[in-house]
Parts: sequence; C-alpha cells; structure tokens
Amino acid sequence: MSVSDDVSVSDEEPRPDVSELRREGLIERPGAPEVVHDGTGRVLLRFAPSARDVRVPPGVSVFDAASWNGIAIDSTCGGHGTCRKCKVQLTSGSAPVTSHDRRTFTESEIEDGWRLACLVKATTDLAVDVPPLVTRPKAATVGVGRQVILRPSVQKRYLELEEPTLSDQRTDLQRVLDAIDDLELTPDLHVLRRLPKVLRDNDFKVTAVVIDESLVDVEGGDTTTRRYGIAYDLGTTTVVATLLDLSTGTPVSVASMLNKQQPFGADVITRISATMMDPDTLPRLRDLAQATLAELAADVCAEGEVDLHEVLEVAVAGNATMTALLLGVDPEPLGVAPFIQSTASWPTVSASEVGLELHPAAQVVVFPALGAYVGGDIVAGMLACGMDRDKRTRLFIDVGTNCEIVLSDGDTIVSTAAPAGPAFEGGAIRCGMRAADGAIEVVKLVAEPQEDQAAVTLGVIGDTEPRGLCGSGLVDAVAELARVGLLDDTGRFVPDDVAAERFPALADRLAKIGEERVFVLHRHTPDDEVASTVYLSQRDVRELQFAKGAIATGWALLLEELGLEESDVQQVLLAGSFGSYLSPASAVRIGLVPKLPVLRIVSAGNVAGEGAKMALLSSRERAGAEALLEEVQYVELSDRADFNDRFVEKLGFPG
Amino acid sequence: MSVSDDVSVSDEEPRPDVSELRREGLIERPGAPEVVHDGTGRVLLRFAPSARDVRVPPGVSVFDAASWNGIAIDSTCGGHGTCRKCKVQLTSGSAPVTSHDRRTFTESEIEDGWRLACLVKATTDLAVDVPPLVTRPKAATVGVGRQVILRPSVQKRYLELEEPTLSDQRTDLQRVLDAIDDLELTPDLHVLRRLPKVLRDNDFKVTAVVIDESLVDVEGGDTTTRRYGIAYDLGTTTVVATLLDLSTGTPVSVASMLNKQQPFGADVITRISATMMDPDTLPRLRDLAQATLAELAADVCAEGEVDLHEVLEVAVAGNATMTALLLGVDPEPLGVAPFIQSTASWPTVSASEVGLELHPAAQVVVFPALGAYVGGDIVAGMLACGMDRDKRTRLFIDVGTNCEIVLSDGDTIVSTAAPAGPAFEGGAIRCGMRAADGAIEVVKLVAEPQEDQAAVTLGVIGDTEPRGLCGSGLVDAVAELARVGLLDDTGRFVPDDVAAERFPALADRLAKIGEERVFVLHRHTPDDEVASTVYLSQRDVRELQFAKGAIATGWALLLEELGLEESDVQQVLLAGSFGSYLSPASAVRIGLVPKLPVLRIVSAGNVAGEGAKMALLSSRERAGAEALLEEVQYVELSDRADFNDRFVEKLGFPG
Repeated sequence: MSVSDDVSVSDEEPRPDVSELRREGLIERPGAPEVVHDGTGRVLLRFAPSARDVRVPPGVSVFDAASWNGIAIDSTCGGHGTCRKCKVQLTSGSAPVTSHDRRTFTESEIEDGWRLACLVKATTDLAVDVPPLVTRPKAATVGVGRQVILRPSVQKRYLELEEPTLSDQRTDLQRVLDAIDDLELTPDLHVLRRLPKVLRDNDFKVTAVVIDESLVDVEGGDTTTRRYGIAYDLGTTTVVATLLDLSTGTPVSVASMLNKQQPFGADVITRISATMMDPDTLPRLRDLAQATLAELAADVCAEGEVDLHEVLEVAVAGNATMTALLLGVDPEPLGVAPFIQSTASWPTVSASEVGLELHPAAQVVVFPALGAYVGGDIVAGMLACGMDRDKRTRLFIDVGTNCEIVLSDGDTIVSTAAPAGPAFEGGAIRCGMRAADGAIEVVKLVAEPQEDQAAVTLGVIGDTEPRGLCGSGLVDAVAELARVGLLDDTGRFVPDDVAAERFPALADRLAKIGEERVFVLHRHTPDDEVASTVYLSQRDVRELQFAKGAIATGWALLLEELGLEESDVQQVLLAGSFGSYLSPASAVRIGLVPKLPVLRIVSAGNVAGEGAKMALLSSRERAGAEALLEEVQYVELSDRADFNDRFVEKLGFPG
Repeated sequence: MSVSDDVSVSDEEPRPDVSELRREGLIERPGAPEVVHDGTGRVLLRFAPSARDVRVPPGVSVFDAASWNGIAIDSTCGGHGTCRKCKVQLTSGSAPVTSHDRRTFTESEIEDGWRLACLVKATTDLAVDVPPLVTRPKAATVGVGRQVILRPSVQKRYLELEEPTLSDQRTDLQRVLDAIDDLELTPDLHVLRRLPKVLRDNDFKVTAVVIDESLVDVEGGDTTTRRYGIAYDLGTTTVVATLLDLSTGTPVSVASMLNKQQPFGADVITRISATMMDPDTLPRLRDLAQATLAELAADVCAEGEVDLHEVLEVAVAGNATMTALLLGVDPEPLGVAPFIQSTASWPTVSASEVGLELHPAAQVVVFPALGAYVGGDIVAGMLACGMDRDKRTRLFIDVGTNCEIVLSDGDTIVSTAAPAGPAFEGGAIRCGMRAADGAIEVVKLVAEPQEDQAAVTLGVIGDTEPRGLCGSGLVDAVAELARVGLLDDTGRFVPDDVAAERFPALADRLAKIGEERVFVLHRHTPDDEVASTVYLSQRDVRELQFAKGAIATGWALLLEELGLEESDVQQVLLAGSFGSYLSPASAVRIGLVPKLPVLRIVSAGNVAGEGAKMALLSSRERAGAEALLEEVQYVELSDRADFNDRFVEKLGFPG
C-alpha cells in the first residue's frame, strides 16, 4: 500500500512524502499483513472514553475522524508525525506501525496498540482509547491536515492592577489599557458599564477579554482558561455546530440537527421562491435559521459544560442563500438571472443579530462567498483543504443538489458550480431517502458468489432493516451494477436474457415495476417490521447519470481551462456532508470523479465546518478566507458554447 | 461704546478688531444715540416669522440669540461680517449701523432696519424679521462665534447605477461602492439587508447614506437633502435637544424639559448616592435619562416635521455623572474619593443603546470628560468657545452646583472644579426657586429715587407676580444691595439706623423674620393671587458668598498657576443654563468674576449644547473635543495648601 496520494499538507513546511521515506528505507513495511484500502465500504471507529461511534470511509486518519466528530486529540504539528503528541491506543483492530511510531513508542507500547493517531489510516474497524489532553498547544490540526497556529481573535489577559489614589486618578479604563500595552484596544460600552464594579469587587485583579482590537469585557479573577467559540456549518439540510475551546484549539462538543427551514423546501431554490410568494416568509425563514443556531448553541454548551456567556465568537459557513436567509437579506436576486449577491464579504455582526444569546459582545464571522452558487461553505472548505497553499494539482468537489467544483494546479485556482439536481439527496429517486437510519449507504454485488457468499451485500445506516436508498448507496448501487455488467456503458439495464445467462445469481433481482425495469436491492419479507422493498429503477439510474454528468462536465471544463488532463490530478477531495460519505471506488466507477487510482480520492469530511473552526482559531486564517475571493477565479459554465456537447459525453460510464 | 472686548474669534482668520477699525475711521459712529450696554438687566428679542420670544443678557448678538434658540439665520463666515449672508430686518427697536452694514445694504434698506445679524449686539428690546434661508452654506456659525466648516460624519450621495447582467455580476454592494470611489466604506448589516430590494424597486437610482466610513443605508431616489442630527445638552436639571439639518448646518427646532431623574435628587451627588443604596436605582435612572432623550427627540422631530428615522446621528454633552447614568455605567466611583471615572473617552454607541429609536444605524457621539467633575458638558463648552484656538487670555466659568472653571492664556489651558453648592439653583436659599415663571431674575435698586421712580425694580420670568428668587435674581439682589451700601463689604446688612439715615427709600424693606434680618424684595398684597412675600435673608447672602467664594478661589488659583493677574483676563465667558443668564455687572460687583469692565464679561449661552451641535456638523471639531483631553491640564484644588486662605479672602465683596 502506498499512502503517498492522500497525504495532507501543512501551511508551515512541506510534509515528507511517506513513499519516498519508504524508498529510502526510513519506514519499515510493517510485519503484520496490511489491510488494503480499496476505497469501498465504511469503517467504524469506536472512541473511548467518550464512547462515541464514528463511521467514515476507509482511508481517513484516526485523528481526522476524531477531530471531525468533536473528539479532542493532542496535536501541534498538523499531522506530520513530528510533534508526537497525538498518541492513542488501539484496543481493538490493528493498524500498521510506522517509523514515527517506532521512534515514539517502546516495543511493548506498540504491542499494546499505541500509535500516532495522525498516521493511522482507518482501513478496518477500530476501537481507540484517547488519553486526556496534556499539553497547552500553540497550534491545532483541523481541516484536511491543516495545522493552524492558535491566534484566535478572542484573547484573555489576567491583570493585577494598582488601586487608584488621589495622586493616581487614571480612569478605570486607562488602568486596564496601561496594563495591556502591546495592544491598541478600544473599549466596548458593555465593558465600561461593568468596569467600575468588577474592578472594585475583585481588588483590581481581573481578566480582560479582548476580541480583535476591542476590549469587550473584564471579568473578576483569572478566567483565562475559559474562552469558547462555536463554528457552524449552516447547511440547507443539516446544520452542525462545534463548540471550540479557543485556548487549546480543541473541540469540546459537536451537535447537529436538521435546518428548521426544511418545511419551506428541500433546496435553496424552493426557499428563495417561498420568499418571493409571501413577504412574511423572509423574516420567518430568518427566524427559523436563527432558532436552529440557538438550539445547537444550547446543545453544545450543555454537553461541554460551558455557559452560553462564555462563548465569545461564532463563525458561520453556509451557502449564499442560507447566509442571506440567516441574516434576513432578501435572497431573490440570488435565485433569478443574473444571480446577484447582496455582497461577497459580510461585516462582522453581533451574535444577537443572528438570534444568539451569548456573551453580549460576542461577534459572528460570516464566511464570504465567491458567487451566488459558490458560497461561504465552499470558501470555508477551500480554507480547510488549503486549496491556496498546496502546490499539487487538486480537485475539490462538494457534491450536493448544487455541486461546487474547485480546481487548483498549485498556482491558479478556478471554480464553478454545476446544477446536479436532487439525486444525491435522495430526491427524484423512487426509493430515495436522506442518509438516516434505514438508508442503504453501501452496496456490494458479487456476480459469481462462492458458497455462503451473498450476491448482494448492503450497508444500512443504524444497522437496521433497509427503508430506502441514500445518495452514497445510490452511487454504490449504480457503480456496482455497472461494474458487474448489469448496466451497460450507456446506463441501460441489460436485457433479461443476457442477465440470466451471464449473471444467474443476480438476474432474479431484475424486475419490472409498472412499465419500468428495476433492480431489487432488498425484498420485503414478512419478517420485516417496517421496511418495504427497496429497488433501483432505470429512471433512477438516468437521474444519477444527469447529476454526475453535470458534475463531470464541470470539472472537465475546469481542467480544460487550466490546460490539464484527468491524469494530472494528484488529489480529489470529496467534500460536504454527502461527498464525504461517497465510496471513492464507486465515484471513479460512475465517472463522477476523474479516472484515477482510488487512493487519490480523499474523503475531506465536513470541510465547511472545519473552515469555520479555523476562522475561530486564527485571525490569519480568517483573513485567508477573504483573500480567496481575490485568488479564485469563477468560471460561468452557462457561458460555455461546448457545455452541452461535453455534458452528453459525460453521461455514460467510463469503460 | 467700544465693542472690542467681546468680539468673537473664528478658527479661520482673525477677526478685525472693531475698535481699531473705528480709530482708523473705517467705522462711522452711527448717528442715532447708541444704547450703552451696562451689563445689567435683560433684553427681549422677538423673532418673526417664527413668533419666538427670546430673553438674553444685553450684549449678545442677534445672530447668537437666534442660533441658541433654534432659529436659523444664513451665515458662512462665523460672524466676521464678511459673508454678508446674515441679513435681518429690525422692525422695532434700533441698532447702530456698522461699516459692514453700509457695504451690504442701500441707504433705504438701512433706513428700513436691515442689518447683519452677527454684528447687531442686542442692547435694547428688538423685533427681528428673519428672511428664509437662501444659500446652501458650506459652513455654519455656532457656539461663541465659531465658524464650523460643514463636514458632518453623516453624508448622503445620490447614485444612478447600471443594472447587473450575466456579464456584469458585481454584487449589489460592489456596485454601490464602485460609484463612491472617494471613500473607503464598510457596509452595515442593515444596508445589506435592504440593498437588493431598494436597488430593484428604484431602478438602481438610490441615495447612499454614509456615517464616517460606514455605508449604513441605501434609500430609494434622491434623499440627499434629508439628513438630520440631534444635539443634546444633558443637564442634571434641564435637558435641551436641538434638531439640526446636517445638510445646511441650521437648527430646525429646539425643545427642553426637566431631566426625568429629578425625583432622585437635585444634584449629582444625591443621584449617585441613590444608586449606592439600591441596586435597582442605576437601571431606573438610566431608563429615566433615556426616556428624557426619547421624549425630546419626538418633540423636536414633530416640530421640525422630520421622521425619527431621518435622524442619523446624535451628540450628547453631559457631566460625568449624567453621562454615566445615561449609559448605565455604575457612577459610584465618581462620587467617592479618589473620584475615578470609568473612562474619559467613550466609544461611539448605537442610538438604541441610549433608548432612542431613530435610524437603525444612528450613532451617538458622547462627549469625553477631563475628570469626574469637569465633564463632557465642559469639554463641549470649551469646543464651542474655541478655548484651544483663541489667542487671548480667557476665563470660562460654568456656574452651577458644581462650578467648572477653565483658563487659557492663549497657549496653556488649565481647568478645575469648584464646589459652589446649590445656591445658584435656588437651593438653600429661603425664597429660592428655579428659573421658572414667577422667579425674580433681575433686581435693580435706586437709593435715591427721582419722582415716579421706584426704589426697587424687579424683572420676573413670565412677567407674572413674583414667587421667589432664582440664581440670577439672587446675584442681582446681593450685588445691588452691596452697590447701594445696604450690605457692607463683608456681606453684613448695615444696622437699621444706618439704613434709615442713608437709604430712606429702601430702609423700610429691611425687616426681621424670626431672628434673622432680611431685605424684602416683594411684599405680598391682597391683590396678589398666588405669590407671597419674597425676601433675601442674611443667611442667603452668606450662602451666596460661600458659593462665589469657592468659584473665585478656583479662578484665582488658576490665574496663579499661569502667573497672571485678574486684569490680564481679556474675556470672561459665563456659560451654562445659569451662568448665561447672570448679569455681568452683578457678577463683577459680588466678585464672582475678576474685576473687569463689564464688556469683557460675555454671556456664552448654552455652550454644552453648542458644542454638541459642532460635533454633529464637523468630524474635525469632534476630533478637536478628544484633543482637548490632551491639551487641558486639570488642577486639583483640594491638593492646594493655600486653598482655605484664598477662600477666606474671596468671601467678601470687592470694594
């Protein structure tokens, strides 16, 4: 196994290429037979002592899987294996031993399962014991192996001040400012209100709370270890909140829920339309978005045992429509040609403006957007993936109803949006459903099964009876049917007689429902309590073809724009709540991504949320997000004369 | 008559010395016998067409009297007589003709009473016709002859923008910012919310509203002539609001009312004490102050026919305690040694923070303070008087319970506060009352009256029957009694026999009430409907002596600080709602001000309110207020070993 294709890169120094180290004999091939990651299926990581179960596509590092799910593991080097802080103990399952592990642990520790979490790629189910945090880090690892030096805009300083006298009549404020002489602070009204009492109630021993250049509060005694932020990934469907300890950079807790705007439509266009029909809808949608954020804030704070008033900053990454609705901005021009945003960059707003009752001076950083359809979530994702810092040729794809695509050749960055339609969200698919309990998310077919081997193996979310097919299951199903040959290259089911002859073990699953040919994935039996027959229809296949065709046309045209071939792409990052759960092998198989070795296809996780975390942890990274607006060029696909030709080419499955 | 002592000075160029011009023969002595201004009494100005009656001490210019009372007269030169815009017609009463008038008007116009308002000193009752404004001025005259170039932080720009297309997908904001390329604007969330709709509802023809560097609103069509601000003088007793047209610099309307905090005590110390007794009092006092401002805002807007949402900026000048209470800041440290402020300078706060429902982005500029007892009202007053720009030796005295004194030798500025006590507000005075209807405000005594001449002449506010004695009446009464000799230099009433011998016309008014000797100013008669006997007691005289003694000690020590004699003072500015109504002659007589020709004693008007107006009209002047904090040195009187000696010296009346 070579892992050279999915190493991640820090902003500080280039990460050593592991395959190179191996050629140089610096990394031993581990003795134990390595589980070869073929890019299919899903692995389960069970973290202790937090008792959290996490399912990720194979190949994701243990460190990333933990971080994305709010489980804090020490790290200061950005996953280079150099800080040797991310020690974990595998108590079940196994992972290869790297040379870094050998330099870090004794033989017996390695025997006992100790590994550096950043270098353990999860290719099989694992149980992972995470030790408590011991260091006070100067950096945190977030996003796709991004090491972020901790420079949050929220700072605290403990001060012991001299009490005033008739000969030292400096104002209360001046006394505080004189003690913080390395910053040019302006005070907030809130702090001036409290200052006289807090100083005198605490014998002039206080903690100054600073956001950017503002002195926003003064707290009695030493509260320097208590400063928190919440990073939101504000999705059209799902909203995720991560409570961050800003003094250590570690996640404290994570919560997610459906966006309360859901009843107004599944996608952005239906929600924009709703605001156009009735002037009361915009304030209603704004309130629902704000209520979603508020409920999540309460959840993560309760779980993290943090008072809402200790949250000093919030970052929100959402698409242009979700951002506009949250802020109460009329979204109509986003939804109709020529698709104009109110603004690309947003001013910092107070938390109360988005309905959050946090610290009175808490502020909200809203991610800027490249365009009406390449929004703040994508800018956050680019930040989390280091699109502007990595010298490799990389393709970033956020798969969803609207699919955003970014391509970098290490120098120039181009982006576009492709209208993929609702197939990936389970929409317009006969047995489609969202990725919830009962959804088939993994499909494996065996054309000529051995004895005791099933012809059809399904992975079902919640390990329950199948109720439908979610996006990744849809992609898997189509990919597997194409792989075994039940679907031809044009996406048509082979005739029954051909199927019966060539694939006897699967042929009986080809059926007709109404006038339409279908492949039955799960047949309802009297034993099933709730579930019914789950199948994939010919029309479902077509829907998926249209969706992936639009996406493939997008990246194909971007490749052309930079004069690149598919094979030049060194890494494909599948992002977003859907893309991250896609099987890389299936994505290649159906042509959703360029035809590349599966190891070059990386599940990037919830990069919007990771970007939001980065903005909270580092004001430098926050500035980097704004800089992306200048650095990334938007390519309008509808302007291209060759769009339709290319789209038709991309409808079929690669040979 | 020489008017050289009370000319005012502009910041732009030195005003020609009128007496010099006269010596050079450039100004004719007017033919009509001039009314000699002896610094006593009060004159009545009746303005048309506004039908407003204004009473001011003699010597105030017609322009200033109008301006202080919200009556707009054209002017762009700061009262130099050079812009020749401040034309008014005197329809009753007369005023000398200046050479400037001769250059401006025809003989027959002068015959008809036309004059330049800035040069007409009101020394007799006048009726004044004010023509409607004709110019769009670039400067306004405010304060004590200060010419302020109009550079309000509130700006409006009318824009006709190109509509977006697929080939011009600039954001709405960018489109606006590109059209205002001389400013580096950051947008306010409010404007981003409205922008899409306002642009499209108005065919992209809009008016951008700018405050400082912020784009705070975009309004449909051309609204450039509608921009307003409110200047508040937030007094402990009285609060005055002036609605200003920021596009012309002219006052639109003025309203005043008692501070709603009054029930919690007449002075700052009792209000601070109230907050110390009960934690609920601070929010209560804050709400009352805010309710006062809100009621006045409603009043001035209603009178000016301006919508509250058209008010974009507010300036507040108040003493340190009033400012703290308005903002909800704990005032306790202001009231107890070592008298510490929360801050000297305040951040700009939103109007809603002080309970004002104006434009959503309206901001409040709060004047900074030099110390706990030299507050923002005094800084505003210094600004209005140009204390840091005038090269003359000038003494500024704001007379009140706490009396603030500022002395400038044209180079160095020193200030102090003197605890004068409540005498000037009518407190601790037997028949004392506030300056309201029925208050005796002017007293004139004639020791040897001619036939048909009254020995005692009283000026009563509201021209009604006397009910009591306000501060200026008290000063007048004591000054007149001292002048005629009924009070000796130590402040004691002369014995009855001496009075009967030397002042037969007045002696019968000396009486005893209880054990105390009194001088009866008004004897209750059966004809009086409500009023009763009004008198001045020996103890009242002592109270006034203590009050003026403290003030005189203050300026005497400041003069020493700068190595000056009393006679070096070229101008005394009597400021504040009380000081401005004081008779200059009486102030000299009792030794409240240095012994100087009365023409050097100038009534400066409500300088706190004028300073607040200046802050709205010019961001440069606003910066000047902050600069005063650095330029003015505070002298702590309680530190001076010689304070008591000097105080005893200053208790008596100058010979």
